[in-house]
Amino acid sequence: MLNLMEITESNKESLISELKGRVTETEQEIISSVNSILSRVKKDGDKALFELTKSFDKVELKTLEVSTFEIDECFNKVEKEFIEALEEAKANIKEYHEKQKSNGFLMTKDKGVYLGQRVLPLERVGVYVPGGTAAYPSSVLMNVIPAKVAGVDEIVMVTPPDKNGGINPYIGVAARIAGINKIYKVGGAQAVAALAYGTESIKKVDKIVGPGNIFVATAKKLVFGEVDIDMIAGPSEILVIADEKSNPCFVAADLMSQAEHDKLASSILITTSKELHKRVEMELERQVKTLEREEIIRTSLENFGSAIICRTIEECINISNSIAPEHLELMVDDPMKYLGMVRNAGSVFLGRYCPEPIGDYFGGTNHVLPTSGTARFFSPLSVDSFIKKSSFIYYSEEALMENGEKIITLASKEGLTAHANSVKVRLENGNV
Amino acid sequence: MLNLMEITESNKESLISELKGRVTETEQEIISSVNSILSRVKKDGDKALFELTKSFDKVELKTLEVSTFEIDECFNKVEKEFIEALEEAKANIKEYHEKQKSNGFLMTKDKGVYLGQRVLPLERVGVYVPGGTAAYPSSVLMNVIPAKVAGVDEIVMVTPPDKNGGINPYIGVAARIAGINKIYKVGGAQAVAALAYGTESIKKVDKIVGPGNIFVATAKKLVFGEVDIDMIAGPSEILVIADEKSNPCFVAADLMSQAEHDKLASSILITTSKELHKRVEMELERQVKTLEREEIIRTSLENFGSAIICRTIEECINISNSIAPEHLELMVDDPMKYLGMVRNAGSVFLGRYCPEPIGDYFGGTNHVLPTSGTARFFSPLSVDSFIKKSSFIYYSEEALMENGEKIITLASKEGLTAHANSVKVRLENGNV
Repeated sequence: MLNLMEITESNKESLISELKGRVTETEQEIISSVNSILSRVKKDGDKALFELTKSFDKVELKTLEVSTFEIDECFNKVEKEFIEALEEAKANIKEYHEKQKSNGFLMTKDKGVYLGQRVLPLERVGVYVPGGTAAYPSSVLMNVIPAKVAGVDEIVMVTPPDKNGGINPYIGVAARIAGINKIYKVGGAQAVAALAYGTESIKKVDKIVGPGNIFVATAKKLVFGEVDIDMIAGPSEILVIADEKSNPCFVAADLMSQAEHDKLASSILITTSKELHKRVEMELERQVKTLEREEIIRTSLENFGSAIICRTIEECINISNSIAPEHLELMVDDPMKYLGMVRNAGSVFLGRYCPEPIGDYFGGTNHVLPTSGTARFFSPLSVDSFIKKSSFIYYSEEALMENGEKIITLASKEGLTAHANSVKVRLENGNV
Repeated sequence: MLNLMEITESNKESLISELKGRVTETEQEIISSVNSILSRVKKDGDKALFELTKSFDKVELKTLEVSTFEIDECFNKVEKEFIEALEEAKANIKEYHEKQKSNGFLMTKDKGVYLGQRVLPLERVGVYVPGGTAAYPSSVLMNVIPAKVAGVDEIVMVTPPDKNGGINPYIGVAARIAGINKIYKVGGAQAVAALAYGTESIKKVDKIVGPGNIFVATAKKLVFGEVDIDMIAGPSEILVIADEKSNPCFVAADLMSQAEHDKLASSILITTSKELHKRVEMELERQVKTLEREEIIRTSLENFGSAIICRTIEECINISNSIAPEHLELMVDDPMKYLGMVRNAGSVFLGRYCPEPIGDYFGGTNHVLPTSGTARFFSPLSVDSFIKKSSFIYYSEEALMENGEKIITLASKEGLTAHANSVKVRLENGNV
């Protein structure tokens, strides 16, 4: 099912641009319709939210906020082993993200000068959580826990109500386990608008995170600047580097684990073994038939699946660095030996028993990762995503007297005499 | 000159929205013309750069790269005290930014599991530096030094040539002092295109930073995603909190130091003293006549200058937190006592002898700061701006055997059977 390629400098480029080509421009029609939803919520607040929810979600709500009782009920509806697994995943994710916390600093210098940097949590964060069939409780943990660890005061969730005005019970459970302060039954562009501008029920936030459909993604792009947003995720990607000793059954399973997300998902095998590639193809055919999303997987692999044969693992990694995949599996012996060569990858899965879903659900690393080659310059969602930094500096009178002329020289050469003047007035009047 | 306001909850909002209102939408005409420049450079590379430079900068170049000899010449053209002041500024900026470096981490867990995060510098960064009258050598230091400290392999600069095909000597000197690898004589949207797509002479970069006119800013927005960019800066802002003991001469000078940047700049005084406000007004009138940019300053203060009288310093800070200014001066005794109350501000200048230009030029903190209220969620330019993070995780066979079922449970509840399958095949074949 994979498109077999011999890599040269020229088709490496075309492979990379194909990956990026999967992201298409948002149609003007969608932008206009999202824009009109945004203005309506900005103007009419809750009233607009109730009306839009009636029209899109086919349900007439009386209140937006999910009650404590409703969340209690969610716990009665889901399996005990699900709750236990989620609690354990939470502990792993929290433990990992705690290590990401950074401290500010203070430097003291001669003549009483001091300067430094503070790390401050954002005050309010909104998390978008899709409802219906694309309800992913794991996403709730991945988006909320880093914000919690960062020290965000208030984390609210928005999620579309079902036709009975309820919410997905798995999402309700995940929200309480993650530590969400409030949940509102509202979805789509209208939910993003409520978080960005505030309404009577929903307070304006500083940042909106979480996945959503094209309307949600477009709304997030349009409110960016008014509030901060997370990355807009493109279709998922997995790149598996495997040697001749790799189990083709595992390799095939891992390639399909991302292919099932989306017909636009991309799964790439880079291997030193032609034999392995052949056996992986056989495994793909054998296993795909057993999977619920067979059709999506076939389409995705046929369009965006590739197999690349290299001479050495080092060469495999070089190609992977050019591609900068979201997920990279290093299915080799002693994988740590190669980690240092990996320059561009969102998250790296090491060894033969570390399939990518460990990172999606359980291991502790975040599953919100840069796609479409942006791992060249973007990072996974992390505690950093929920803090801001602020610098400060103190100069004593004595320190300004000593350094003032230099500052005046630099400002004057830039033609900024009012900048120079602010120092000058102090040098002149300093002793008045 | 300042618009005197009594603060209530309602006009606080209007003050904030006025600040944001200074940022206007880019006209469709500019977007189209920038788009056509981008495509032209993408298609024709260097040839397009030479042609566009001829048409916009009125100079026919033979090569784009600035030679070592040309930079040597720059050093002959500028004053010795400028070079010395710039060298000292560099040392201060470097010392401060060194403290921002962060480390990755590794956690080891039971059953051989380990996971962690690496911090990796970006590989190539492009710095845009305006030419002509808006040539700011201080910006070269502020954009380049954090990238250097981050460990970026290659930092290149683009700057428009003058009519003789030369570059501004102050910029040339600043570039060498900052440690730029290469300088190219190209400006405008075409320079941004060259950095984003690469040409025969200029290699594609991972991130583009640095200020520029509307064409440069628009080009940066349009190539975002292909490469990373820094924040698009809005008009500058200063907010001075001053008590009754403050010197009105200093306060007035500091307000004007930002007002001179731009007719859209905003300067706000928040004080506990009506008397101080009156005397500041007198000082503004007296000092403005001595400044080169008198007209810009008057227009800026009349349109976007405000004075707000509060009862306590705490109240002053609360209002400042709502505004989230780019620069905040705390002109009070014992300013550190109040720093903890400041939640939203790009950079804070403490005490009576710490005018904002210390941070623009010399003190060590960065002068690239979040504007238009975005200090609520954005941070100053820093070493963080030039690194990416990448997570990694290793699971042993034993650890997967122990935790596999939990991962299968979580994946199955999300309907992702191929995710579950990647764990399942290992649980089944693990001993094969």
